[in-house]
Amino acid sequence: MKNNTVILAQLNPISGDVEYNKNKAIEYIKKANDIKADLIVFPELFLLGYPIGDILERYPLLALQTKKALDEIKEYVVDTNVLIGYVEKNEEKFGKPYYNSVALIQNKTITRSIRKTLLANYAEHNDYRYFESEKVSRDNRIIEINKVKYGIIICEDAWNDFDFFKRNLYKIDPIKEIAPYCDCIICPSSSCTRAKKEQLKHNMMVHTAKKYNIKYIYVNQVGANDELVYDGLSRMYNEKGELVAMAQAFKEEIFTVDLDRGGVINPLPKGLELTLNSQKEFSLDHKPDLERTYKAIVLAIKDYFSKNGFKRAVLGLSGGLDSTICAVLLTDALGAQNVLGISMPSKLTSKESKSDAEILAKNLGINFLEIPIKDMHELISDKFSGVFQDVSKAWDDEYKNSFTQDNIQARSRAMILWGIANEYPKTLPIATSDKSELYMGYATINGDMSGGYAPIADVVKTKLFALAKWMNENREKKNAIPISIINKPPGAELAINPKTGKTLLAEDALMPYEFLDEVIWRIENLNQSIDNMMQNEFLYEKKNNINIETKKMWLEKFFKRLNTALYKWYIVPPSPVIDARSINKIEFKQPIVSNINYSK
Amino acid sequence: MKNNTVILAQLNPISGDVEYNKNKAIEYIKKANDIKADLIVFPELFLLGYPIGDILERYPLLALQTKKALDEIKEYVVDTNVLIGYVEKNEEKFGKPYYNSVALIQNKTITRSIRKTLLANYAEHNDYRYFESEKVSRDNRIIEINKVKYGIIICEDAWNDFDFFKRNLYKIDPIKEIAPYCDCIICPSSSCTRAKKEQLKHNMMVHTAKKYNIKYIYVNQVGANDELVYDGLSRMYNEKGELVAMAQAFKEEIFTVDLDRGGVINPLPKGLELTLNSQKEFSLDHKPDLERTYKAIVLAIKDYFSKNGFKRAVLGLSGGLDSTICAVLLTDALGAQNVLGISMPSKLTSKESKSDAEILAKNLGINFLEIPIKDMHELISDKFSGVFQDVSKAWDDEYKNSFTQDNIQARSRAMILWGIANEYPKTLPIATSDKSELYMGYATINGDMSGGYAPIADVVKTKLFALAKWMNENREKKNAIPISIINKPPGAELAINPKTGKTLLAEDALMPYEFLDEVIWRIENLNQSIDNMMQNEFLYEKKNNINIETKKMWLEKFFKRLNTALYKWYIVPPSPVIDARSINKIEFKQPIVSNINYSK
Repeated sequence: MKNNTVILAQLNPISGDVEYNKNKAIEYIKKANDIKADLIVFPELFLLGYPIGDILERYPLLALQTKKALDEIKEYVVDTNVLIGYVEKNEEKFGKPYYNSVALIQNKTITRSIRKTLLANYAEHNDYRYFESEKVSRDNRIIEINKVKYGIIICEDAWNDFDFFKRNLYKIDPIKEIAPYCDCIICPSSSCTRAKKEQLKHNMMVHTAKKYNIKYIYVNQVGANDELVYDGLSRMYNEKGELVAMAQAFKEEIFTVDLDRGGVINPLPKGLELTLNSQKEFSLDHKPDLERTYKAIVLAIKDYFSKNGFKRAVLGLSGGLDSTICAVLLTDALGAQNVLGISMPSKLTSKESKSDAEILAKNLGINFLEIPIKDMHELISDKFSGVFQDVSKAWDDEYKNSFTQDNIQARSRAMILWGIANEYPKTLPIATSDKSELYMGYATINGDMSGGYAPIADVVKTKLFALAKWMNENREKKNAIPISIINKPPGAELAINPKTGKTLLAEDALMPYEFLDEVIWRIENLNQSIDNMMQNEFLYEKKNNINIETKKMWLEKFFKRLNTALYKWYIVPPSPVIDARSINKIEFKQPIVSNINYSK
Repeated sequence: MKNNTVILAQLNPISGDVEYNKNKAIEYIKKANDIKADLIVFPELFLLGYPIGDILERYPLLALQTKKALDEIKEYVVDTNVLIGYVEKNEEKFGKPYYNSVALIQNKTITRSIRKTLLANYAEHNDYRYFESEKVSRDNRIIEINKVKYGIIICEDAWNDFDFFKRNLYKIDPIKEIAPYCDCIICPSSSCTRAKKEQLKHNMMVHTAKKYNIKYIYVNQVGANDELVYDGLSRMYNEKGELVAMAQAFKEEIFTVDLDRGGVINPLPKGLELTLNSQKEFSLDHKPDLERTYKAIVLAIKDYFSKNGFKRAVLGLSGGLDSTICAVLLTDALGAQNVLGISMPSKLTSKESKSDAEILAKNLGINFLEIPIKDMHELISDKFSGVFQDVSKAWDDEYKNSFTQDNIQARSRAMILWGIANEYPKTLPIATSDKSELYMGYATINGDMSGGYAPIADVVKTKLFALAKWMNENREKKNAIPISIINKPPGAELAINPKTGKTLLAEDALMPYEFLDEVIWRIENLNQSIDNMMQNEFLYEKKNNINIETKKMWLEKFFKRLNTALYKWYIVPPSPVIDARSINKIEFKQPIVSNINYSK
């Protein structure tokens, strides 16, 4: 093998499992030695694994474990130099207790430790809670191997170019300090996937490569840990800012690049290169983001189950969109034989819903059961009427129209799912709530929002419709989802609409999903107030004739419901971050008692 | 009124409710004007209210709202100077978007803005996510009123004395920069209550007052927002470090001090002055912390309900310790008429449990019902046997001993509680899980761990026993808790112990609570590994004869169960932080998939 070969170890660590991560590192270092590569680079903080949560604070032994792991690893380092992330203790009297460091190992010796400067502390990041920042030193950051000078930049260190960003979070740009003095930037990262992030990242790296006329190698973690899905897509740019090598998306891989000639260029998830352009306005064209969304969730489910020692999922199949999409994603993540879909009709469940659920299960090849819950509903309902008579003696202000009956149905179903999960090993029930409905609190506590994992809690409804169609076209087995499910207007089939005499539809209870999803988008992407939104025309307005009072009413309803939904966000199960911003607890918290005036 | 009077506005804001907080500020400024005080000081960031979560990120209008509020407030500022916390926008191209600032308002004019330097970002704090740090400037920090020079220090700014702490989180000590040049430190704070924190804080302020021969005024927020309970206890020390005035604990109060003569000295919660001494080793003597614990939880419940617009609670009364303690605390927070306790016996519920529950309810004067769940249990049980026959056709590895039956009971009960909460306005069901059992995952999802609030989720079992006795002695109505409840060994009455033929006790399923609580204490206070714990003698070992294998087995069981409990922590309802460290989501997160080797 010729000179100037770098291996990008795009691997999938487990948070806190230093032993597992170390063994994986050793395995790949051996392979790198076999091909006599110059250098193998692991993702940021690889020996601990991202995300770290607060485990370093409570279990300081983890820092020692990563240091010990380094000492074991170094014995395997022969021909190939190694750059690997670990937790370095801060021995000074001042500052946070640790450094987020990368060790350089050469010829069985740890020759250098490079410490991160910019400590991300926004969204899912909380580096500043545990890590001290180190000043950028050129001598420390630049390493020379086979006459090539590599400048080491750790993840967030790369995100502060003064020209590229309109506003900078930090006063230092580490790249500026070292790029003029080296040939190639190497950036070990743990950067999770999110809507629109790929193009931002790409443009930023292109900008840097061109600005300094320098090569740029980016090594990213892959795999999911709870809510965060790392997409891999490690890569190299040449001095002109041209992409000359790219590893696969969402796959573990030992990826080799030649500094002069680049390497394989794997494709991005389809359409992803288009997503940045749509950053400035809301669009119902979700297509450019569907392959990424699909692959991210499938990997999220797979890793959440396997890393936790689970293998099977059980979910209710209502014949509606949310449970349908969850069933398909679970099938692709866990295998059809490991999925059990259950139709649990009540007296309000339509024949169509039942048969749609059954056809879906058949198309997917998953296990299927029908368990009517009419008897549970009746018994509990009857029981409650007696109970409420008694309670009303003390509290005489019973609601005239309560959700009690609706919720008995949803909770009976969840009870069946959890019962099955309790009875069969390695089985988790699934929460099928989607993002649009969670914003509205349109989900039953201990009912449909209950489960071990919530695969689509960060995907809005209009995108789920698009995803259903996409899966019908792009999965190996075409059209697994009956078209009637996609065409049916969403509704929980928990209550009758007194106006129509039919089961209440979600859009009657809430507002049109197209409108709702744009409100969410405007909050998360533009931080808009109600007044801002009143002043901006919604896509829905362009297509439909609605008056200003209706718009105002919907907006006020939205924020009123959001306030009461905060409690549900607090107890919703873990779910993968998919969108540009999410309500996942790992990145967003709003005090439940908070009482915000969202108007202006 | 004579000169040199300072008013400590120990008030209770609502997170994000700028209008409410502003009106409260104006009300108290008027009162201060009436008595022609020199200065009125509000708690840190008063106009926004702590905790802030991530609301500033998503709703930047909040920063504007606090600025507008200042402009309204200033019109009321006549004789009395005002120091009040608000969110100041960072107009520079670099850094976080805001400053955590205090405005000085004099004679209808905002004359100065003082920005916080040290940005707490540990435990419940996340200032560094949104605030930029400002260098300490003496000119800016020192204000002169009536010939007294006050040095302004904002909360965390006070926590970095180089002599007082063994290790410092920051390289700057703002007090050191200004204390030599002023007569009195004023420290607006939002500092929540926690076990052992009061004495640390007291000692630190005494140290500072003596070191610089300076007066020290500390103004703290009071009230609860979700998980954090602010205890008030605003105060003044003289130049000798003597406490010369102290506001009440856990009460809103406009508290006046005379710079020369001090003021009223209200008592600390009883015993609290003893708590720091016990920091170094585990003790079963919980007494010094019981009054604080009781008052903190009562205020937490009261504020959580009232700030969210709820007024009534419904809970299951099992006749066991946890539900009993919750019932007492709810009664004292919400009033007996607003509490409904329900005994929900299954076939495993003993007569004693039922009658204990009823006696307790009678003693407390709360509403009481008995709703047997035998019919629900039987119906669901029968239903499940058919279901499991079907499921086993696909998955043939059914557990021999599952928790399914146990959990049906717990879930049926929760279904009743949520049904009642759905039927009656402003009513929340209560989750009764305690901290010891949450560490062990000894709680049923959608069962006893489900509810709108979890009052005792940060209190360990041995402390709950002590608290029960304390409440019997110290509440106005003595001995409300039947002594049989306190003397009974804990157990969920969900299953039969095959060895004894009686219902399974918690300590049989887990380990002795005295041992368990010490493990928790050692993790949270000493960050110990299993090996550390093996090398240290437990209090339980001193009192009981156990061998090393048993100890090892319990420790391994503990950490194994803890790993599977992480998911339950993720979905446990909000609960007040009480202990020195907690598993509340506001301060501690461990990835669910994490797989830590806790040994060494």
